[in-house]
Amino acid sequence: MFAPRGSTAEVEEGRVLAPKFDADGLVTCVTTDARSGEVLMVAHMNAQALANTMATGEAWYFSRSRRNLWRKGESSGHVQKVVEMRIDCDQDAVWIKVEQAGPGACHTGRRSCFYRAVPVGEGAGTRLEFRDAERVFDPGIVYAGRTRSGDC
Amino acid sequence: MFAPRGSTAEVEEGRVLAPKFDADGLVTCVTTDARSGEVLMVAHMNAQALANTMATGEAWYFSRSRRNLWRKGESSGHVQKVVEMRIDCDQDAVWIKVEQAGPGACHTGRRSCFYRAVPVGEGAGTRLEFRDAERVFDPGIVYAGRTRSGDC
Repeated sequence: MFAPRGSTAEVEEGRVLAPKFDADGLVTCVTTDARSGEVLMVAHMNAQALANTMATGEAWYFSRSRRNLWRKGESSGHVQKVVEMRIDCDQDAVWIKVEQAGPGACHTGRRSCFYRAVPVGEGAGTRLEFRDAERVFDPGIVYAGRTRSGDC
Repeated sequence: MFAPRGSTAEVEEGRVLAPKFDADGLVTCVTTDARSGEVLMVAHMNAQALANTMATGEAWYFSRSRRNLWRKGESSGHVQKVVEMRIDCDQDAVWIKVEQAGPGACHTGRRSCFYRAVPVGEGAGTRLEFRDAERVFDPGIVYAGRTRSGDC
């Protein structure tokens, strides 16, 4: 489905898409809000999810916990329209900038999955602090009677 | 070093840091520029890298290819000062916003590792397109006589 891996120079400086799938057949995907720049979620794509995302312009992922391909929003309606996709130097991670349909990306009802801060610096402790954590939808309503197909 | 994993509710709605390290003992880290919001790189942290980052306020990673703990910038001088760290809903990914020392984060000499766009949409083809790909430093000079300690 994708080109085989070439030399380091070909992978880093070439125009050939040759993703480096890990032992589980996955690349990492970072998804940001195309307008705000906020990181909405981090997920994974197998070859099929990557191909589907490229072909349809909507985000598809592979759930590591449920072991299934899923289209973001297929349960919740909160689909993600891809505005731009980038790939990194060694081609084992992609970055998609998306227009998020609906109020939020996270299955807990928040806009982003990253709603807690980790303390940093000497003597900062280890307690998480909720930040930008307001619920923008009620998961109990959005997923009522539906099976969540993916992780987020 | 970190708390054991609790129930889903505890992991998602609690204040206890209980990272979900994968089979290789790693969590994913997304690193963005604190000012521009641009995604600079995606890397991994083992427990020690995460602990070091929290304690020192500088980014530490674990290289999957070199199998070693590394402090970002220890070869290049391009250290990353952590302005804020977030963790996601299921605690298997962190997001750090950093002040990047030096001109860029990528070992190829670019500001970001994500200097190529992947075509998206029907009939878009598969050729990568260089975007924001100007070199801001010369890796041959920066790494001259030094061993690169990590992936990027």
